[in-house]
Amino acid sequence: MLRQPIRILGIDPGLRRTGWGLIEADGNRLIHVACGSVETKDKAPLSERLVVIHDGLIAVIEQYAPHEAAVEQTFVNTNAASTLKLGQARGVAMLVPARLGLSVAEYAPNLVKKTVVGAGHGDKTQIRMMIGVLLPKAAPQSDDAADALAIAVCHAHHRQSAVLRRALG
Amino acid sequence: MLRQPIRILGIDPGLRRTGWGLIEADGNRLIHVACGSVETKDKAPLSERLVVIHDGLIAVIEQYAPHEAAVEQTFVNTNAASTLKLGQARGVAMLVPARLGLSVAEYAPNLVKKTVVGAGHGDKTQIRMMIGVLLPKAAPQSDDAADALAIAVCHAHHRQSAVLRRALG
Repeated sequence: MLRQPIRILGIDPGLRRTGWGLIEADGNRLIHVACGSVETKDKAPLSERLVVIHDGLIAVIEQYAPHEAAVEQTFVNTNAASTLKLGQARGVAMLVPARLGLSVAEYAPNLVKKTVVGAGHGDKTQIRMMIGVLLPKAAPQSDDAADALAIAVCHAHHRQSAVLRRALG
Repeated sequence: MLRQPIRILGIDPGLRRTGWGLIEADGNRLIHVACGSVETKDKAPLSERLVVIHDGLIAVIEQYAPHEAAVEQTFVNTNAASTLKLGQARGVAMLVPARLGLSVAEYAPNLVKKTVVGAGHGDKTQIRMMIGVLLPKAAPQSDDAADALAIAVCHAHHRQSAVLRRALG
């Protein structure tokens, strides 16, 4: 059977900056495709900022045509106002790929770190370093883009079991 | 100068139930147009639930062609997981009208209650009662639909000052 490489879009949602990262998974081989971030202006009205995130992610999906998407399960911090902001960005980040027919997996930050760094409490520096090892051609310009690539790598490692779980109902 | 009635869409966002209410404001006269709610299944994946909210609100806007939208500034409660859920629904509820070119105003729950009930701490029963007085033809089937109508009424009362603020920069 000819196995097709799977193109995965990882998304690290945030109201100010939403990171995105695209990789191809061909069996165990991972290849960097592209990464970046969608930025919004602090002072713009919330509804406009959400439209910027929406349009930015649509553009990425239209340009790179990923097969599957994965989004980080947002860290719920102690500040309710921050959690609400993150929730609003995350709602849009999950909506866009789902509307375009992609499956959207969710991963807890600890699983992402564990998969990429080998420990559940890796910091952003360690994640960037391991992304450099796992995806030598990637040169993420921001922590958000590096995190998005890490989420895509996490999905590449865990998607098989998710597919099996779906198939087995 | 011929004054055109303004058609306003109020939205009360929620992951399980998003209420919507449409009114026409002709000077001081308010007329009920329609109201209802978009419901999602608890057990469905989050991304699918967000698509249901998205598609439901798109259908309402396409059917009733409102000129402006207003969304409640979500109450930030003490449970971070609930705040995140609400944030995700709210992100989609604000995105949809903005993408379709409508202005999207935000109102604090206290201002909505004060405008409709006359006090900032009115409960849901009082809001439904006052909606019955202000919009006699409305028969909201749920608290969410009644709240959405209350948000639309609030916007009808306050939009003039918002328009002025925008014009004055």
